[in-house]
Amino acid sequence: MSAQNFISRELAERIQNSVGTPCYVYSESILRENARKALAFPNRHGLTARYAMKACPNGNILRLFASMGLHFDASSGYEVRRLIAAGIDAERISLSTQELPDDIVELMKLGISINLCSLAQLERFGSLLPGSKIGLRFNPGLGSGGTNRTNVGGPASSFGIWHERINEAKELVARYDLDVFRIHSHIGSGSDPEVWVKVVGMNLALVEQFPSVTHLNLGGGHKVARVEGEKTTDLQLIGERMNEAFAAFEIRSGRNLHLEIEPGTYLVANACAILARVQDVAETGESGYSFLKLSTGMTENVRPSMYGSQHPLWVVPADDSPRGEKDYIVVGHCCESGDILTPAPGDPEALLPRRLTEAKLGDFFVVGGSGAYCSSMAAKNYNSFPESAEVLLRENGEIALIRERQPLEQIWANETKVEL
Amino acid sequence: MSAQNFISRELAERIQNSVGTPCYVYSESILRENARKALAFPNRHGLTARYAMKACPNGNILRLFASMGLHFDASSGYEVRRLIAAGIDAERISLSTQELPDDIVELMKLGISINLCSLAQLERFGSLLPGSKIGLRFNPGLGSGGTNRTNVGGPASSFGIWHERINEAKELVARYDLDVFRIHSHIGSGSDPEVWVKVVGMNLALVEQFPSVTHLNLGGGHKVARVEGEKTTDLQLIGERMNEAFAAFEIRSGRNLHLEIEPGTYLVANACAILARVQDVAETGESGYSFLKLSTGMTENVRPSMYGSQHPLWVVPADDSPRGEKDYIVVGHCCESGDILTPAPGDPEALLPRRLTEAKLGDFFVVGGSGAYCSSMAAKNYNSFPESAEVLLRENGEIALIRERQPLEQIWANETKVEL
Repeated sequence: MSAQNFISRELAERIQNSVGTPCYVYSESILRENARKALAFPNRHGLTARYAMKACPNGNILRLFASMGLHFDASSGYEVRRLIAAGIDAERISLSTQELPDDIVELMKLGISINLCSLAQLERFGSLLPGSKIGLRFNPGLGSGGTNRTNVGGPASSFGIWHERINEAKELVARYDLDVFRIHSHIGSGSDPEVWVKVVGMNLALVEQFPSVTHLNLGGGHKVARVEGEKTTDLQLIGERMNEAFAAFEIRSGRNLHLEIEPGTYLVANACAILARVQDVAETGESGYSFLKLSTGMTENVRPSMYGSQHPLWVVPADDSPRGEKDYIVVGHCCESGDILTPAPGDPEALLPRRLTEAKLGDFFVVGGSGAYCSSMAAKNYNSFPESAEVLLRENGEIALIRERQPLEQIWANETKVEL
Repeated sequence: MSAQNFISRELAERIQNSVGTPCYVYSESILRENARKALAFPNRHGLTARYAMKACPNGNILRLFASMGLHFDASSGYEVRRLIAAGIDAERISLSTQELPDDIVELMKLGISINLCSLAQLERFGSLLPGSKIGLRFNPGLGSGGTNRTNVGGPASSFGIWHERINEAKELVARYDLDVFRIHSHIGSGSDPEVWVKVVGMNLALVEQFPSVTHLNLGGGHKVARVEGEKTTDLQLIGERMNEAFAAFEIRSGRNLHLEIEPGTYLVANACAILARVQDVAETGESGYSFLKLSTGMTENVRPSMYGSQHPLWVVPADDSPRGEKDYIVVGHCCESGDILTPAPGDPEALLPRRLTEAKLGDFFVVGGSGAYCSSMAAKNYNSFPESAEVLLRENGEIALIRERQPLEQIWANETKVEL
């Protein structure tokens, strides 16, 4: 099911009057529902579901998920610090990063676990912390894209130890007396169960190379439908198909594996919407378009501008006047031609008008499916717009502020003045 | 001329030891040279060169340009506040924004000028501040792209009052007794003098519709070559060709116009480089690539990931060992497949290996041409990486810190804790 609009006019007015707009609105009930689904992922010998926090790292979201039993995937040493600052137990934190942090010894002493993601990381980590328990992230040679496109797996991906170099990894493991308890290989597999079964097969082949391994981490990449026509990964379906492969492995090897998954998008994408206003309407004649200009844009959600991502969009009229429908190009508030909410799918520079409720100045506007890689990955402070507020829509219908709107002066607070 | 590397190993070491990396390094001498060129733009009756500060809004850069005689183009009310906070005279500030700020009355009272960019802005501004002196931004109907691509001019652009609606603009001007002293129409014209001549012609036709106009603002869009094969706009050349059109206009109309230009990229693009380290090297076999992983990426410069922009890249060896050359895919430090510094031109998802000096772990790495829309438009704090430091390389060779590295805790300082 694609994202649904959970922001009524009444709620929009309440948010406008309490914290103002633009504002990220997270639905506690959807967050909890998604967490329950992830935690119910089929498994034969135990499951750890780790929230890939880079998708949306607000400390309240982290604590909410922790309270339900989720663990965490950090993608940098800084994310580890952020988790700790939010009160998350170090035992629940696993680090898989492109850049091994300088304070890795200190971080490990806190009690986190790690997946080493390259031979250089393995070498450096081993020399610093010989005898440690570690995970290894591999690139199994398969990706969901082509060979010359950006990807999280396959020859065009820089993530993980290239599968053909497994012997070098083994030598380093032996040299530094490391205990490999986990294999990780995330390749962004989408919603097709057959692809996941193939991935599991490749992973189990890696596990067989390391008799000490007790945990298999399949990463994330569970796709979510934001708009109609897109497909949400059915976790039950892929999990059950995967279990067949695990059962065969158990018979073959006599080994039982603890399963880890790392959903990010799956947990938060459709649990959040950006609430903004229609602040201008412009037309460019017969051969042109009708533009809705919002009080938000790439400063809150850069995905349409960056990837041509499709987000559900809703006009929420601020009055009771009768409204028809109309085709609009929806644009953001930045002085930037690419700040657009209605690109063609996958093509950020092409315009694709969207049929929406006819809008007036001052109407509310909702950008759905904005929970993942929006607040965390936006063009923050571009055009000097302050970072937006974030609120949590509680299950009882109340609004709780979880991040205040950034004070304007904070944007340049770190500047130091020099004589010129 | 494309961007040159002004960061030697000696300078890199000095920056590493004083403020650390990654770090934006701005060259004072190049900034000053660019400002001198902009201020020398050919004109017949006076010139105001306004720095489009959204390109790079550090207060020290603003003050440096102010000290040389530049004025400023703000793209939001927040940018106006930022200029004022940096000590810039309000008289030097012009606001052209997609979103008319709520505090516009207060901002105007400071003494700034404005270009109203839509009929709705004109209506709202007029009702709030009747009798004011204003500029009007028009969309003259021509853009440098097609009709269904994002653009700053033409039917696919939302910027400015559509030229066919000039009579509605005139009615609002009359209704609110506004004094139109300036016409603005920026269409992003690039480096071709013939296009600029055409633009001037369209602008002068608009000026003829408003007898009160004394100032013509042609916006920015002066392209800069970052890498070889790209072309830098020759300001002298386009300015001289434009003067012919202005001379004809003067004879025809008996009116002399004060010229305004709004360079952003032109002033800063090649005056800054990002200094980082090579923190990993990975290979993906015979059909694959050699990857250099940097300690920077889309957190400091999102342009390659977003637009497929080409930036000059240099390995600066940290030791004296002999080095050959090698083809590399250069990637950033984020757990994001799109965090890549060597996309194919204009295609952010395709990989195009770049021939570079053979690199070792710990080498310095320079991402050139990173002055415009890098520090200001990056995916700031993605993966919880703190905002990088910025330094100014003084003309005497000294390094002056102009922005401290962001304290990690500042990233989540605005979060408020709720009971869960």
